[in-house]
Amino acid sequence: MVVVKANSSPTVPTNKNSFPCSNGTTLPLTNSIINLDQGDPVVLGSYWKKMSEECTVVIKGSDLMSYISDISNVCWFMLPEMSDAIKRLHSVIGNAVTEEKHIVVGNGSTQLFQAALFALSHSHSHSSQPINVVASSPYYSEYQEEVEVVCSRMYQWGGDAAIYDKNEPYIEVVCSPNNPDGTLQIPVVRSEAEGKLIHDLAYYWPQYTPITHQADHDVMLFTFSKCTGHAGSRIGWAIVKDIEVARKMTRFVQMSSIGVAKESQTRVAKIIRVICDSYQNYGSIESELFFEYSKRKMRERWDKLRVAIGQSKIFTVAKFPKAYCNFTNESSETYPGFAWLKCEEGIEDAESYLRKLKILSRGGERFGVGPNYVRLSMLASDKVFNEFIVRLSNAKRDIVLK
Amino acid sequence: MVVVKANSSPTVPTNKNSFPCSNGTTLPLTNSIINLDQGDPVVLGSYWKKMSEECTVVIKGSDLMSYISDISNVCWFMLPEMSDAIKRLHSVIGNAVTEEKHIVVGNGSTQLFQAALFALSHSHSHSSQPINVVASSPYYSEYQEEVEVVCSRMYQWGGDAAIYDKNEPYIEVVCSPNNPDGTLQIPVVRSEAEGKLIHDLAYYWPQYTPITHQADHDVMLFTFSKCTGHAGSRIGWAIVKDIEVARKMTRFVQMSSIGVAKESQTRVAKIIRVICDSYQNYGSIESELFFEYSKRKMRERWDKLRVAIGQSKIFTVAKFPKAYCNFTNESSETYPGFAWLKCEEGIEDAESYLRKLKILSRGGERFGVGPNYVRLSMLASDKVFNEFIVRLSNAKRDIVLK
Repeated sequence: MVVVKANSSPTVPTNKNSFPCSNGTTLPLTNSIINLDQGDPVVLGSYWKKMSEECTVVIKGSDLMSYISDISNVCWFMLPEMSDAIKRLHSVIGNAVTEEKHIVVGNGSTQLFQAALFALSHSHSHSSQPINVVASSPYYSEYQEEVEVVCSRMYQWGGDAAIYDKNEPYIEVVCSPNNPDGTLQIPVVRSEAEGKLIHDLAYYWPQYTPITHQADHDVMLFTFSKCTGHAGSRIGWAIVKDIEVARKMTRFVQMSSIGVAKESQTRVAKIIRVICDSYQNYGSIESELFFEYSKRKMRERWDKLRVAIGQSKIFTVAKFPKAYCNFTNESSETYPGFAWLKCEEGIEDAESYLRKLKILSRGGERFGVGPNYVRLSMLASDKVFNEFIVRLSNAKRDIVLK
Repeated sequence: MVVVKANSSPTVPTNKNSFPCSNGTTLPLTNSIINLDQGDPVVLGSYWKKMSEECTVVIKGSDLMSYISDISNVCWFMLPEMSDAIKRLHSVIGNAVTEEKHIVVGNGSTQLFQAALFALSHSHSHSSQPINVVASSPYYSEYQEEVEVVCSRMYQWGGDAAIYDKNEPYIEVVCSPNNPDGTLQIPVVRSEAEGKLIHDLAYYWPQYTPITHQADHDVMLFTFSKCTGHAGSRIGWAIVKDIEVARKMTRFVQMSSIGVAKESQTRVAKIIRVICDSYQNYGSIESELFFEYSKRKMRERWDKLRVAIGQSKIFTVAKFPKAYCNFTNESSETYPGFAWLKCEEGIEDAESYLRKLKILSRGGERFGVGPNYVRLSMLASDKVFNEFIVRLSNAKRDIVLK
């Protein structure tokens, strides 16, 4: 998370078209702006500091030079070790079916979302109308911008899936657990028209939500960023049922970037192997395992958040139902990567309110709902998160009147 | 380069929408299909085998985890060491001005080409007409497909720059040395309308052409793939004069892939440092330096190619003028990364002709000219290149009649 001195706040990009530009921290935080707008998953880094040696990769000068990775794979730029690691990880966690499916690696799931739009609207090319892309609100704030960025004639943003009533083909994006609100989602469009689905499962990992079933959908997107916190590696993957869709997605990644950095692929494969080995050697390993560590961190943070919210009485946050997790073998709540807060009556603009507390957040309108909602990252560093909790606990309604 | 057994040729993707899918080789080559369609720069790998230890990078488990790299840079996802290395490399080679310019790193120059289209057509957003993107034929075969891939309303393919006569705004792509034909290019559009330029300088490195001047254009694209042969790293960069264009290009890369893999950035920065150190310690180093090695390889290949072409009398190839290279301090020819061959009369389809010799190439129509032209990679492995030369030397006109 970005932490900057209050007096340097003009350099913090808060425009919706910007992204934070620092990982530096300054001391003390008391008078600082804290940025919980984006979801840089810094919290998970503390685990990898302890595992730094086990996960080390060494890349020599002549390694990994070709564009090409594997002639036998639809996704010809994917290293075989990357593909093997992804399948093994899903097998260990039990969160997605990979058997008889095709894996396409991408530069983050962001690129693969666009690859999926390309692939799914391509098969509609007999129509001259752009296909409508919809998602149930509150929806991830970037979907609309990613759909609209280059003004494609193939697809266009269609808004809230829950109220979609056109008799025209559509693509529904189902994000579960949902960014921003953490709820588990299913398709909601009731149109008679032909619909296709993209399941964005970025947060369907044990630290965020109980693994209740192996997801088994036509197009499923995952990202390593939210799985382990290695956002800088820019590795995402799609699990795709139809080989023609996988081919078109591969084609899109080829046209967009001629594949995916092999250095990242080999490193991510290594880290996944370390995780899987640790679970399969369970009993011989004394230190806490990754998903236990990260789930504990998320639970502790959510406990603190609920206490702070109870004290301030400014916001409310949903209570998530418990479910049995097949991976951790325990019943637990969802602990989303973002807090989705609703203002109590009397505060109309949650983002502006938090800005007075020097907390940068993302207002509800970006997610297709009102400004009385706000999203805050739960994945900041301990220092930033704890300062956020202090400020939230001390917040009083009268700040609105100042 | 891809080498597969002749009897497995159906698995070789030769469709224009495909990309090769193997780096394996089989012995002997005599009866094999050799793929010179794509430009995988395998030839340069032999140098890096010798330098493998010096260029090794070690990445620990907790390194490079954040999305963010540098708050102070327009291109916030670029590692400072990457930016420093790029500037230093251009300073050592003398092939481009970086002072008072902005560098934007991308997932290969492919992504940056699209980022530049986005940025330059964005400033035309007052117009409802897509801006025309043109390039002088023969032009790089992928430009048109990259322009058209998602059917943008912002820009559209406008064809051959040399015959562009619309009184409408345009973007001219100037590729110099040109892919496919190796010629040095300047803008050619004579329209009265407002034009913007993208200079694709992927091959403006000493092994391919004499460095006669520091290029100094508004938007210049480079790729590490063609510089050193590390195509698997997917690192390209743009050198941009106008900060607003750099911001929009950064925005595009953000929307497309939320930045560029840091593992690749740190490795590429390391390799560039090794190259620059070797030149700046010249005299104390006994082994051949990179650009000397690679230029020698290219010259040897072009010498062999010209002999083979002279023997077969099937094709002709342009003779390039000599020029003084400010970097190598000698006068030399251009040694392009591709051979651009023209059939003699009587052979109408060069690609089909070469296919009979079990040589995969890319026909002239993909480059906006006739099928009597063909492009072949000069960057294959020694084994593949030498087999190509043998087949070309032995080719006779009568194969056409078989």
